[in-house]
Amino acid sequence: MTDMLSKALQLSVIALTFALTACAPSLGDRNAAMSGPLTIAQQGSFFVGGHDIHSDMLSTLPKYAASGTVTVDQMYVHYQIPVSAKPISLTLIHGCCLTGMTWETTPDGRMGWDEYFVRRGYPTYIVDQSGRGRSATDISAINSVKAGKTSPSQLPNVFAASHESAWTIFRFGPEYPKTFPGEQFPIEAQAALWQQMVPDWSASLPTPNPSVPALSQLAIKLRTAVLISHSQAGIYPFQAAAIDTQGIAGIVAIEPAECPSASGDLAPYTKMPILVLFGDNVDQSTRWAPRLKACRAFVAAANDAGGKAQLVLLPDEGIHGNTHMMMQDRNNLDVADWILRWIDTHVHVAS
Amino acid sequence: MTDMLSKALQLSVIALTFALTACAPSLGDRNAAMSGPLTIAQQGSFFVGGHDIHSDMLSTLPKYAASGTVTVDQMYVHYQIPVSAKPISLTLIHGCCLTGMTWETTPDGRMGWDEYFVRRGYPTYIVDQSGRGRSATDISAINSVKAGKTSPSQLPNVFAASHESAWTIFRFGPEYPKTFPGEQFPIEAQAALWQQMVPDWSASLPTPNPSVPALSQLAIKLRTAVLISHSQAGIYPFQAAAIDTQGIAGIVAIEPAECPSASGDLAPYTKMPILVLFGDNVDQSTRWAPRLKACRAFVAAANDAGGKAQLVLLPDEGIHGNTHMMMQDRNNLDVADWILRWIDTHVHVAS
Repeated sequence: MTDMLSKALQLSVIALTFALTACAPSLGDRNAAMSGPLTIAQQGSFFVGGHDIHSDMLSTLPKYAASGTVTVDQMYVHYQIPVSAKPISLTLIHGCCLTGMTWETTPDGRMGWDEYFVRRGYPTYIVDQSGRGRSATDISAINSVKAGKTSPSQLPNVFAASHESAWTIFRFGPEYPKTFPGEQFPIEAQAALWQQMVPDWSASLPTPNPSVPALSQLAIKLRTAVLISHSQAGIYPFQAAAIDTQGIAGIVAIEPAECPSASGDLAPYTKMPILVLFGDNVDQSTRWAPRLKACRAFVAAANDAGGKAQLVLLPDEGIHGNTHMMMQDRNNLDVADWILRWIDTHVHVAS
Repeated sequence: MTDMLSKALQLSVIALTFALTACAPSLGDRNAAMSGPLTIAQQGSFFVGGHDIHSDMLSTLPKYAASGTVTVDQMYVHYQIPVSAKPISLTLIHGCCLTGMTWETTPDGRMGWDEYFVRRGYPTYIVDQSGRGRSATDISAINSVKAGKTSPSQLPNVFAASHESAWTIFRFGPEYPKTFPGEQFPIEAQAALWQQMVPDWSASLPTPNPSVPALSQLAIKLRTAVLISHSQAGIYPFQAAAIDTQGIAGIVAIEPAECPSASGDLAPYTKMPILVLFGDNVDQSTRWAPRLKACRAFVAAANDAGGKAQLVLLPDEGIHGNTHMMMQDRNNLDVADWILRWIDTHVHVAS
């Protein structure tokens, strides 16, 4: 009895220790990461990809030459590498109508995932998708129509998400301006989100989006890259892996607009751990519920094919109220911690 | 005789000490700034300005709503504040066909002025002009023409600078692909410059450029801001000062495309020290020689009106070979040091 009690107590202590190490280090890590200055070994920016084209429609203004060479389809990358960096790097790819700014500062002025991940020791790479933000668009088709050389139907497909439609797409509530009970987006600071939205040229870009081969090149360069995508860009890391799995140490797709087809070639997706992450109130969204379902089917099929894929709903992990913009939600660092724990557990550095 | 010799020697020693302090601290400061990690007290991003508009032409794709509210004309600002920051902040405003990336990393991968200024202790703010980079454009006019609602003449004036025309504008040489003897741009890495060029919508934006009131708001918020502009943006700090001189502690206009008129209201430009800085080979450029001349006239007139303005050609300071893209030239940190010395000497914190 005494021995059994002793053993039971020992097991309890081990279990308790395990439970504490599962939770406690996270808060400890966060406090350590948040205290004191940010110490950067290296920072900077560069572009990946792109190609030169000749155009005779660079300008309709006499002040600027109409003919010449321009570079298009390249992807902007800004990076920060902390001192004593971990061997796994994180690359963040924003979604529709947004830029890399998405990850920098929240609309209500809190720390974004960019700085937080660096503070947690990860070399962090933030991209602007090809044709967005600091990555050039090709405006030749606009000037060609303006000059009367081609018809208006040849104009690029560019669109902007209104505040009202983004409200529903981002799942702040069932419809503008209603909110879901307990939702975590800092609604009072919404004006600062609307300021960061930009028009989207992706429907005028080649297929796959030029960001996809650029991400593949970037991962090969970085060697051990976790590609963290959001929304519209959700599919890009998968498409990059289909080009070449080299360098892609893991994929974290946050509320992807699209997962790979469950009936397609799943071989590339068995080569790295995959996390598909959704927030709260997904079932109440006619936009997101079917996407969640399709991603579930993909994850099941990838695992049947020998993969290590996982689909997680944050509420099932005890994290509630997250919108589509979880990197800016009030509890954005709780979500970041959860993702970092997943990476820590699942992504391994190739020996 | 001995007294005179002694006095002459004393004067020589004073002169020598003066000459050494004019140069030596700069290299010492640079070595100290460049060694070790970059230590950041605070970093992040936000937008200044912008306003909401209603549009029925946000999309021609059925997938996205055509009608709703969008925010336009805001200006993106990324900032880094070092530990033990100086009380004077620097705001950098890029020129035509470029974005804030201009200041980050040189095409051949060296440190840009953004990081260097932070390492030298200055809170540094990098903007993307309104309608450029991460600052949204309004694409309603494009969709209106595409939908057949308005005529092609109503399309926005957008232009892109070709490699060939940028070569001459940036004064890499008299014409593409010739170079000026001894010029400092890293020509072998030109592809990385072409990647960072983007189309320019400024001809379609309101006058003054919305970046101007945004810069005024930013300076008022920052309290002691030196506005450092380049090329197309050269005039913006002056236009911001004409709105309100509050917060503008100094203006550094690097090869401005335009200086204020010498015959206009010069009162705002007597309130702060002003530096207009040009590189080398300016007289050999039909584009830049007349602009230099007009800036000389402005500086003389501003000083006649009681101002403290200065026009400097780098070769006159013993710094040779600089192109229009001096922030990316091989000797970019020599130019940065010269500017920081000027700021240190001329810009004072209001007591």
